[in-house]
Amino acid sequence: MKPSTVKNLRRAADRGEPVSEETAFDILLARPDEIPELMNAATAVRRRHFGERLQLCSILNARSGACSEDCAFCAQSAHHETHAEVFGLLDGNEIAAAYRKAAELPVSRFGVVTSGRALSDEDIEAIAATVRNTSDPRVAWCASMGCLDRSRLQLLKEAGVSRFHHNLETAESYFPEICSTHGYAQRLDTVRAVREVGLEVCCGGILGLGESLEQRVEFAALLAREEVDCIPLNFLVPIPGTRLEARPPMKPLDMIRSIAMFRMMNPKAEVKVCAGRVRMGDLQAVIFYAGATGMMVGPLLTVAGRDVSSDLRMLEDLEFPASALN
Amino acid sequence: MKPSTVKNLRRAADRGEPVSEETAFDILLARPDEIPELMNAATAVRRRHFGERLQLCSILNARSGACSEDCAFCAQSAHHETHAEVFGLLDGNEIAAAYRKAAELPVSRFGVVTSGRALSDEDIEAIAATVRNTSDPRVAWCASMGCLDRSRLQLLKEAGVSRFHHNLETAESYFPEICSTHGYAQRLDTVRAVREVGLEVCCGGILGLGESLEQRVEFAALLAREEVDCIPLNFLVPIPGTRLEARPPMKPLDMIRSIAMFRMMNPKAEVKVCAGRVRMGDLQAVIFYAGATGMMVGPLLTVAGRDVSSDLRMLEDLEFPASALN
Repeated sequence: MKPSTVKNLRRAADRGEPVSEETAFDILLARPDEIPELMNAATAVRRRHFGERLQLCSILNARSGACSEDCAFCAQSAHHETHAEVFGLLDGNEIAAAYRKAAELPVSRFGVVTSGRALSDEDIEAIAATVRNTSDPRVAWCASMGCLDRSRLQLLKEAGVSRFHHNLETAESYFPEICSTHGYAQRLDTVRAVREVGLEVCCGGILGLGESLEQRVEFAALLAREEVDCIPLNFLVPIPGTRLEARPPMKPLDMIRSIAMFRMMNPKAEVKVCAGRVRMGDLQAVIFYAGATGMMVGPLLTVAGRDVSSDLRMLEDLEFPASALN
Repeated sequence: MKPSTVKNLRRAADRGEPVSEETAFDILLARPDEIPELMNAATAVRRRHFGERLQLCSILNARSGACSEDCAFCAQSAHHETHAEVFGLLDGNEIAAAYRKAAELPVSRFGVVTSGRALSDEDIEAIAATVRNTSDPRVAWCASMGCLDRSRLQLLKEAGVSRFHHNLETAESYFPEICSTHGYAQRLDTVRAVREVGLEVCCGGILGLGESLEQRVEFAALLAREEVDCIPLNFLVPIPGTRLEARPPMKPLDMIRSIAMFRMMNPKAEVKVCAGRVRMGDLQAVIFYAGATGMMVGPLLTVAGRDVSSDLRMLEDLEFPASALN
């Protein structure tokens, strides 16, 4: 990294302020032995805005496959022939049971995820009913149900959902490479609608789709401008049958560099590491030194997560106090 | 850590100088979120004195068990009833074969280790003959054969051994708790004899024997005064049948804190992580950010090491260039 980058990092760490896009880009080029410098800055920023707090979340694939959209990475797209299961919305009892099972873990959030461009009103009402009737003060409800409008988001909010997840997936300039069946503007509308109805905004994407480093920075900068509350970072797991099946996976240290960059560009946002984490091998624990404030635990949508006991052992080894798992 | 400690760490990192014992003690008390500060300093010192170089070594248990000494941790002591194998010195062909097998790995050193207070002259001559007849420019011979005197050390050196390993195991003030059948002075004599005959000195020990943090610092300071070339750090793996079978293992972050402390007290010494590394779980990769310059790979003496492919994958993920494995 340039000496000016190191200086900017340290100043940002001292003040808890975002770094410039130029500094952000240089972070992605950090030499292997400069990773501790990144970790030192990212941890200082994380400590300033989150202390020792840690957010674990768990999700439920509540409706799977048969999606009309052609997102290049997605196993659930009807445009791809993959092994992803195809089933309609689970019934309320199954969703409630999954919520209660997740609540046995030290998670603070449980997300109901449904495939498809947007869930039908009937299905939205069904989920809202389940949320109304099932709650544990430790575990907040999140929803990820595609491009919903304000009235439907409002309905979910009144039922008890506190955060809505809707990824922008990648930089606007790269999005056309990823999806042709809908535009970036539509996703952005949904993200802004979530904000407007007063739901917390969980918005991130997938790195390693083939975007350039500049586009990775562009993406982080956009999320900063949108002031999202939580950035879920996934790392592409190439799935046979999708358009990106042959993409080489990101190197573990590039994942770490990226986490640190998103953290330094978005000092106040939660940064949550999700799918693809297992590909970091022995570097998984380093995500928290790189500024992550949380991770997804338990089963993921269509790729393998890690067994929860190994994850909890890792958190214990990192000496996160039990109280950190708010 | 005290603000003065952070300042001292940064100054030591800038100048590549050792830290004081007071700062060293405070390193062992670093909060979990101060680990990146340690890593930043330790990596700066490591980079200054070792660049990206990395030393992997492999050992052979060439004579096992039936040791007359009562070292509290040791499965090979005749004073303990353990599952450790008991066999005399392997013959020269077996030792040479193990050396050639190790040479297939990216190791730069191969150590012949024999149990017992000191090897007989006949056995020493047998090993010297094997060393004379078996060499690969990439893999240096090391020997660990107990308390040998100068003439026997000289013989090994002339045969082609370049480094002699003899642990002091722990702080002088704690040694009586560990061993009653010989004294610290005798070990220290051997270490100094190794230095005097011009062999490289590989001298470290085992942490987590029950020593205090002060004694851990005392030990690091002694190694600094002795200017040892390489500090092998083991972490106690309690073995059933030994006096320490019931000792609770060290916490992974305490291992990391200790590695960083030994690094910061011994800026110019190799720090090599050996037995007990697997107990660090997901934090194994962090040893290199904590200042380690190498690790032992492959089979250990009486406790399980990790499979070599996982270790090599970890080094790749850390982006150590192949050239780093000198």
